[in-house]
Amino acid sequence: MDTVRTVDALRTRISKWRGTGATVGLVPTMGGLHDGHLSLIRAAKGQTDLTVATLFVNPAQFALDEDLNAYPRDEARDLELFVAEGTDLLFAPDVEEMYPVGHTTEVHVQGLSQILEGEFRPRFFLGVATVVSKLLLQVLPDAAFFGEKDYQQLLVIRRLACDLNIPVEIVGAPTKREANGLAMSSRNQYLNERERRAAPTLYATINQVAESVRDGADADKRCRWAVSRLTEAGFRQVDYVACRDAETLEPVEDSSRPARVLAAAWLGKARLIDNVAV
Amino acid sequence: MDTVRTVDALRTRISKWRGTGATVGLVPTMGGLHDGHLSLIRAAKGQTDLTVATLFVNPAQFALDEDLNAYPRDEARDLELFVAEGTDLLFAPDVEEMYPVGHTTEVHVQGLSQILEGEFRPRFFLGVATVVSKLLLQVLPDAAFFGEKDYQQLLVIRRLACDLNIPVEIVGAPTKREANGLAMSSRNQYLNERERRAAPTLYATINQVAESVRDGADADKRCRWAVSRLTEAGFRQVDYVACRDAETLEPVEDSSRPARVLAAAWLGKARLIDNVAV
Repeated sequence: MDTVRTVDALRTRISKWRGTGATVGLVPTMGGLHDGHLSLIRAAKGQTDLTVATLFVNPAQFALDEDLNAYPRDEARDLELFVAEGTDLLFAPDVEEMYPVGHTTEVHVQGLSQILEGEFRPRFFLGVATVVSKLLLQVLPDAAFFGEKDYQQLLVIRRLACDLNIPVEIVGAPTKREANGLAMSSRNQYLNERERRAAPTLYATINQVAESVRDGADADKRCRWAVSRLTEAGFRQVDYVACRDAETLEPVEDSSRPARVLAAAWLGKARLIDNVAV
Repeated sequence: MDTVRTVDALRTRISKWRGTGATVGLVPTMGGLHDGHLSLIRAAKGQTDLTVATLFVNPAQFALDEDLNAYPRDEARDLELFVAEGTDLLFAPDVEEMYPVGHTTEVHVQGLSQILEGEFRPRFFLGVATVVSKLLLQVLPDAAFFGEKDYQQLLVIRRLACDLNIPVEIVGAPTKREANGLAMSSRNQYLNERERRAAPTLYATINQVAESVRDGADADKRCRWAVSRLTEAGFRQVDYVACRDAETLEPVEDSSRPARVLAAAWLGKARLIDNVAV
């Protein structure tokens, strides 16, 4: 696996591949790799000829009071995992390569970016939409792979790729979980032992909400129940538990359409998010 | 010349050309063609193998109180002119093709979009940046051609193409003028005979400002003089006359850097803009 640090070097490699007729898959990551990321590499390898991964902790998607500095960084370990999975090319730019002096353009996905995660992290999707647009246009892959764990992010990225006419297929891959159900996340590293025991309650709870909604229960009532259950389990703050239209994330109006239960809650220093289909 | 109305049809044609190794030039227009547009077609034909023009009056760049409905539309005439100039392919989508239901993504170029034109037309560059991003990504040309008459727009487009890593060269072409100096513009059609006689004063005045600044005069003082001269000549409102850094459009601080004099003023129903190098 080659590692390149500049857009120019990246494009030179890719255009050489393109010359041979190869298709290209893109797996953007912020490092802190776990099996969720590696499943995306496997998905890319299954669908396209050559897999480009990126490793960039994007400052633009962190608010000033968030965990940019604490975010897990171990490039040597990440590189080994990328290599072991058969990644063909790694793009690992520094901040100046991605945001040179004078960079002022932002990609806004109105609506979808302002609800749920967007209410609690007002500039988060602005940062995500901008950096993902850039990565997609730097690589111009045939397909790009994102985890369903960040479900709202996946919808934001689908939206911007469609709206901006970026010629790429956005592929969502199922959430990878620990044996106890906890969704894999780089931020799980922030949990202490006691918190690790409480963490799986998030998945168990939203699963119960989804099941009972599927059986006809009142969604709002069940989401309120979920908040109190999480609080009892030791979550210090529940940002939201919501049952929404699976495509628009608007409140469910037509019960025949697919729905999704989504939640975000704090356990110690870690803000955990998860979601399941109804 | 083929005319296509959908992004799919556009991409099918272009990928056929690409298969032969041809390079592609893009000339976006809103119709109402004049020699300024045609000079862009000629520039594209001189630099790339195949020239794609677009014809789309973009509602997103008009404010509610602006001239969207009055904007000159004569597709039959425009088509003849495109053909006569040797355009290879015309993309003329309708509004639903460009902004299907659910379209919510916007491209913001912070800073540059908020000054000068941006002060008087607050959502103008948002509309321009979004539609030009879309056109660039629909066509993925090697080069795209824009007139220097819309100088700030040219800078906004250069900025977004660079920031979003769109792999395209943005080419600026000199402003085309009538014999009397008036910059060609589709909106000149709004002028009555009396206004047509007054209109060239705009170019004459900013030229005088540029000349005297070049000779060491105080730029602010000369811009104030220009406002009063335009008012005397019959312009009913002068939005601005400004001497700015030619790259950033910030106030000039370093007189050794290239500068530009830019102006916008109303003559009857027409808002005229123009600019010259110092």
